[in-house]
Amino acid sequence: MKTITVIGPGLIGGSAALDLRKAGFASHFIGVEQNPENAAKAVELGIVDQVLPLEEAAALSDVILVAIPVTAIQKLLPSLLDLVPPQTVVIDLGSTKTLLCQAVQQHPKRAQFVAAHPIAGTENSGPLAALQGLYQGKMNIICEKELSSAQALATALDLFTTLGLKTIFMQPQEHDKHVAYISHLSHVSSFLLGLTVLDVEKDEKNIFTLAGSGFASTVRLAKSSPDMWAPIFEQNAHFLSHALGEYIKHLQQFQHHLQHGETEQLYQMMTQANQIRPVLDGITQTPPAK
Amino acid sequence: MKTITVIGPGLIGGSAALDLRKAGFASHFIGVEQNPENAAKAVELGIVDQVLPLEEAAALSDVILVAIPVTAIQKLLPSLLDLVPPQTVVIDLGSTKTLLCQAVQQHPKRAQFVAAHPIAGTENSGPLAALQGLYQGKMNIICEKELSSAQALATALDLFTTLGLKTIFMQPQEHDKHVAYISHLSHVSSFLLGLTVLDVEKDEKNIFTLAGSGFASTVRLAKSSPDMWAPIFEQNAHFLSHALGEYIKHLQQFQHHLQHGETEQLYQMMTQANQIRPVLDGITQTPPAK
Repeated sequence: MKTITVIGPGLIGGSAALDLRKAGFASHFIGVEQNPENAAKAVELGIVDQVLPLEEAAALSDVILVAIPVTAIQKLLPSLLDLVPPQTVVIDLGSTKTLLCQAVQQHPKRAQFVAAHPIAGTENSGPLAALQGLYQGKMNIICEKELSSAQALATALDLFTTLGLKTIFMQPQEHDKHVAYISHLSHVSSFLLGLTVLDVEKDEKNIFTLAGSGFASTVRLAKSSPDMWAPIFEQNAHFLSHALGEYIKHLQQFQHHLQHGETEQLYQMMTQANQIRPVLDGITQTPPAK
Repeated sequence: MKTITVIGPGLIGGSAALDLRKAGFASHFIGVEQNPENAAKAVELGIVDQVLPLEEAAALSDVILVAIPVTAIQKLLPSLLDLVPPQTVVIDLGSTKTLLCQAVQQHPKRAQFVAAHPIAGTENSGPLAALQGLYQGKMNIICEKELSSAQALATALDLFTTLGLKTIFMQPQEHDKHVAYISHLSHVSSFLLGLTVLDVEKDEKNIFTLAGSGFASTVRLAKSSPDMWAPIFEQNAHFLSHALGEYIKHLQQFQHHLQHGETEQLYQMMTQANQIRPVLDGITQTPPAK
């Protein structure tokens, strides 16, 4: 049976490990984790069997999952591929793809690498945030599949299917452009909504006791880890900045109608936005974890 | 036992009726509903026992709950107070307060009126959206309590306590200013996020299959009823426009840092936004209803 190393056994990597172990996909799980507290926690929670230094783990592994912040993935990938034995498959789970793919495009072992992005998560992070079933029924995107070997791709697809993910294929730029809208922008809108309300109501903190479930739902992502998300925003700055510009333009248009008493236009914009309901039907909501 | 009329037995009024009936707060429930389909549904679902024209219902009622769009409340309130018998208590449940309070400030029967805003809801509307327990543990705001009679206020507080609401008191302008941030702005941010992504991805609708639970959570409120929300935004245009301006300013600042590679500043803004987590602890999340 296989040995899997998870570099970063937190929300993303840890959740994968929990389900892969449960499904019997591998018999031994190794963690690579620099933070001693998280390392101990990952073992204690049964996410990994042991924590080892990167070099040792890489030498022992059939599959290596890379689930650390994307700027750290970008730096690590070339040297990680240098280290791994010829049959080892390296799969990254990062939320951006263009810069990560570029980092190893010319690497002699590029075929052993699969660039993936399973679209799932919660606002929490670290080993304690790892959840069984996180990926069940969700979508996964693999980029530049033509640069992965048939064996690496088959192993990755097998792994993602075991997690309950449905995989589609895209080129890195196409991926980054769409996730800017479908994922990164909603994180930015939520972070900034939270920050705006905190800034304005900073002298009246008890006003937040008035917040209903609607506010809680809309700012949920504002609780997300800056360690994970600042690098994503940085790497996807081009497409995200464009998405943000579109969002600001729509908000300004709405504000204009609001200030000019153009309720009919507000009504129209909201009716159009309502089309998100049929479009989203079928997306599973993950209940917010504490 | 009491007779309660619910003008607008939908999400807000219908949910109140369901719980008031269950608690034995009243023995007879009358609906006032112009839409024949919703009227039939409200009876069928046991929200009300019968549907009557406004004049008949008003003459029979101990308590009248007004739960229609806020511009309709504003128009109806003076003539409704004209109609009601001397002991009847009229309570509005609208999400704005300044214009509604102004509409009856000089009315000879102002003392029979209580201006309230229970802060609860979902993205759905109509009788089918009515939920038992919607108000349990939530906050309620009563405005201009000094203009309500002691009897009217006591009846209203008894009713809200029965629904599980905790009531606090504010002046209308103060109410409208705070809910602009804590409720209305999150609806606008969600409506416009949904609209932006729909606009940009209009030729690639299947891209929405990629959306994760984070996107779904952030755009949930974009499914809300324009019939309910356009009037709220119109009535609270002054404070909401200001809130929206603050939000846009924060988004532009974030975009500036993004475009200039100022990741440290992005990181700081996100870390500040993270403060929403301890602030929100204790707010109950309503699971999204289908």
